[in-house]
Amino acid sequence: MPDFFPTHCELTLGEIATLTQAEPRPGVPLERRIIDIAPLDVARGSDIAFLDNAKYLDALARTHAGACLLTPRFAAMAPAGLPVLVTAEPYRAFIAVARALFPSSLRPSSLFRTTGRATGAQVHPSARIEAGVTIDPLAVIGPGAEIGGGTLIAAGAVLGPNVAIGRDCAIGAGVTVQHSLIGDRVIIHPGARIGQDGFGFLPSPQGHQKIPQHRRVIIQDDVEIGANTTIDRGSTRDTVIGEGTKIDNLVQIAHNVSIGRHCLIAGQTGISGSAQVGDFVMMGGQVGLADHVTIGSGAMLGAQSGVMSEVPARERYIGSPAEPVRDFMKGVATLRRLARGQKKADPNGDTQ
Amino acid sequence: MPDFFPTHCELTLGEIATLTQAEPRPGVPLERRIIDIAPLDVARGSDIAFLDNAKYLDALARTHAGACLLTPRFAAMAPAGLPVLVTAEPYRAFIAVARALFPSSLRPSSLFRTTGRATGAQVHPSARIEAGVTIDPLAVIGPGAEIGGGTLIAAGAVLGPNVAIGRDCAIGAGVTVQHSLIGDRVIIHPGARIGQDGFGFLPSPQGHQKIPQHRRVIIQDDVEIGANTTIDRGSTRDTVIGEGTKIDNLVQIAHNVSIGRHCLIAGQTGISGSAQVGDFVMMGGQVGLADHVTIGSGAMLGAQSGVMSEVPARERYIGSPAEPVRDFMKGVATLRRLARGQKKADPNGDTQ
Amino acid sequence: MPDFFPTHCELTLGEIATLTQAEPRPGVPLERRIIDIAPLDVARGSDIAFLDNAKYLDALARTHAGACLLTPRFAAMAPAGLPVLVTAEPYRAFIAVARALFPSSLRPSSLFRTTGRATGAQVHPSARIEAGVTIDPLAVIGPGAEIGGGTLIAAGAVLGPNVAIGRDCAIGAGVTVQHSLIGDRVIIHPGARIGQDGFGFLPSPQGHQKIPQHRRVIIQDDVEIGANTTIDRGSTRDTVIGEGTKIDNLVQIAHNVSIGRHCLIAGQTGISGSAQVGDFVMMGGQVGLADHVTIGSGAMLGAQSGVMSEVPARERYIGSPAEPVRDFMKGVATLRRLARGQKKADPNGDTQ
Repeated sequence: MPDFFPTHCELTLGEIATLTQAEPRPGVPLERRIIDIAPLDVARGSDIAFLDNAKYLDALARTHAGACLLTPRFAAMAPAGLPVLVTAEPYRAFIAVARALFPSSLRPSSLFRTTGRATGAQVHPSARIEAGVTIDPLAVIGPGAEIGGGTLIAAGAVLGPNVAIGRDCAIGAGVTVQHSLIGDRVIIHPGARIGQDGFGFLPSPQGHQKIPQHRRVIIQDDVEIGANTTIDRGSTRDTVIGEGTKIDNLVQIAHNVSIGRHCLIAGQTGISGSAQVGDFVMMGGQVGLADHVTIGSGAMLGAQSGVMSEVPARERYIGSPAEPVRDFMKGVATLRRLARGQKKADPNGDTQ
Repeated sequence: MPDFFPTHCELTLGEIATLTQAEPRPGVPLERRIIDIAPLDVARGSDIAFLDNAKYLDALARTHAGACLLTPRFAAMAPAGLPVLVTAEPYRAFIAVARALFPSSLRPSSLFRTTGRATGAQVHPSARIEAGVTIDPLAVIGPGAEIGGGTLIAAGAVLGPNVAIGRDCAIGAGVTVQHSLIGDRVIIHPGARIGQDGFGFLPSPQGHQKIPQHRRVIIQDDVEIGANTTIDRGSTRDTVIGEGTKIDNLVQIAHNVSIGRHCLIAGQTGISGSAQVGDFVMMGGQVGLADHVTIGSGAMLGAQSGVMSEVPARERYIGSPAEPVRDFMKGVATLRRLARGQKKADPNGDTQ
Repeated sequence: MPDFFPTHCELTLGEIATLTQAEPRPGVPLERRIIDIAPLDVARGSDIAFLDNAKYLDALARTHAGACLLTPRFAAMAPAGLPVLVTAEPYRAFIAVARALFPSSLRPSSLFRTTGRATGAQVHPSARIEAGVTIDPLAVIGPGAEIGGGTLIAAGAVLGPNVAIGRDCAIGAGVTVQHSLIGDRVIIHPGARIGQDGFGFLPSPQGHQKIPQHRRVIIQDDVEIGANTTIDRGSTRDTVIGEGTKIDNLVQIAHNVSIGRHCLIAGQTGISGSAQVGDFVMMGGQVGLADHVTIGSGAMLGAQSGVMSEVPARERYIGSPAEPVRDFMKGVATLRRLARGQKKADPNGDTQ
């Protein structure tokens, strides 16, 4: 098996106990070395696993893991020979271990193991590149572009004129960035398209007139943007992605949209022009927002929701058109009951 | 702030009155210079704004805009000190000003400010390139390809063998075009994929046999295609996009599809194989069309519609399965009423 | 018209009869040459057509096709002058002819008609490239990558460190592959993104912590992947695409997903993290699967389905939330009947 993360680390169970503040059950071999995380069913002796759901108790009984992170309740059910670390939050501890074992997985690296500026990258002489920037082969960096130290520009990425990228960013292979200002520690995965024209036309029977899209995209610090996602620049306002917001693959964010801080937006969601999204909003996959809608902070939108009007802060909505989750569930249940009972209630009904 | 459109123009209010045929209210300083458009709430003294919706009257009262385009009715409500230009269509006038101020925003420019053919572009010796074509670094132009004068091929774009591109087009960064004929003044945004194989297989228990996809994509004049949109070439008929049609980001157009003239197709819509779409059809975001369906000219399909059969000309459909908007609204209202009334109507119901 | 498939073949009607085991009607000119397939309505004298649906009998009466493949029933209705080949499966025979006429359409070719390794490709010295590999201009092949004989790496494709690609594959223009092992005869269309980080974060009020995504993508033999589709690598398990599975454009496949053999997945479908899909599953366009759901082998999911829990083997589901097709149809019919009858049943209703 190719070693895609060759520089990963090892931790002893003692070090893991310290890192996660988990309590080792008596007899745990604190010097045992752990080199990977794994689910209970496939874990080997050098892996650590976790359990926080009774559904997987069978797997706990049969696991070959080198150790397991468990809540106190499940610790009591673990096989005698299994080294157990007890913690109130096993999943959080499990992820802390993974982050310590694979630090190089937390930010994409050069796909060419480039150091410095690769042969064959096209960097305009007027671009300003800080020390410590990595530029892969066949990247294109336009006039007046600025790139902060520690940032990676991967193979085939294209930065247009005057684009500014902060420090310690990773701009993935084949990404396009234009008309944009990007903060620090931003990760953009391959094929994302940032800053092209929004979709704005004045319809008319003689054909549709293009509306100027002359504003920018602003991406704040610690944002992550998925593969092949598209974010259009603004026409009347800048398109803004707030600090710490994470966006999945194939998401469409239209012109003039403002997204707050620390949102989580799952794959294939589409956010129409001038929508306003608050902080800590969560959206499932394939959600659609109509233009100009407002989503209050802390709201949660279920997968495939179609949001046509305001969603208040901290509410949970789902459905198309979207409504509060409890109303949606009641509607689904009502329709199913009526459909089941239909023959009795309406013997002359015309349904198939 | 980086100046992404450095060559933009200025207009005096007098010039704007002439351009838009708006009537200056008495006392308007006709020599005042306007350099940008802006919404009422953020406009500054060098910006022009507009209002055509009573919802924003508060912003009108407080605006710092250098001038405002208003209908006669709203003009009467404007603050005394605000320079007002009166017109029946304020938004249309506002866009006309924007187009005059930012002419360079109406078609994408080189991301490298290239003139002519950049170093590092790979142009096959048998390609025929007219005078006045701009080719960015790391573009790839295949054997026998033809490109008309005034066209831009942006960084990293790839044109396959014998592809023909008309005049004054902009082919964005990282775009792929193969097996296609493209008209004049076509704009294709970054990452769009034009002319690859359609998704055609003959299913069988031994595995699915690939169906040849040996026809073309034809894109007529004045079409615009969004970032990361995909248009597959035909198998039994060419895939055709009619003159003046505008397509947003992340749209999927399958093989053998025919789309008429001057359609507007919003983001993440998917059009299945052999569908036939008339002229001036409008589709909201995330619409899906089943294969072989027909959409009549002038029809409008609401966001997230799932169209499983014919939609007549000029009808408005929505829902999944799609139905006339009035029926959909009635269905939503009926279900909500039944769900609300459910306890009273059915005390023994089994819903949660 | 540019000849996008210049090397295609010709077949006589006699050869077609042999190839398809169809029975020529008496008087068929067995020496007639056929050079293309076409639908009945546009077919010319050098084209072969087919009919297996009474809906197109009018076109049969008027066709100018050089020959037509028909079932025995329709053969009796064909015009006297039309050369008819009779077969129980006209469409299957029609595709067999197309495959024989256009063998070069069955796998993508170089967009630069490259032989061997093009100038301007960047191949890391530690990459291992078998004989007979074609590498287009501006492809980037990272350290330790392995590529099997007969494989095409198209222009601008990027392969990361240690990626392994089998034999006779076609990796399209602008594709990115990292952290992945790919089998033989795999076709990946332009702009697909394989092996980037999955979307995994530990939410917290202080911001969301990135979860390591340190596993791989495994793509088995004979898989086909559409343009701009994204497949993320695993975090706790490898993401696996089973042998012979065909995936359309703009599909999202999340981390840890396992997809079985010979599935067909239509455009813009999204499969959330850790979902398990059996063999021979068919999904329409824009389907969404929630995370961790299981889809049994042979199941069919209708377009725009939203699957929130298990779908048993061989069942047909549709709707959002998805349910068996018969229940969905009953629900649609019930709601439409209630909405139509609403005035009579509830004269005091509050609907619009």
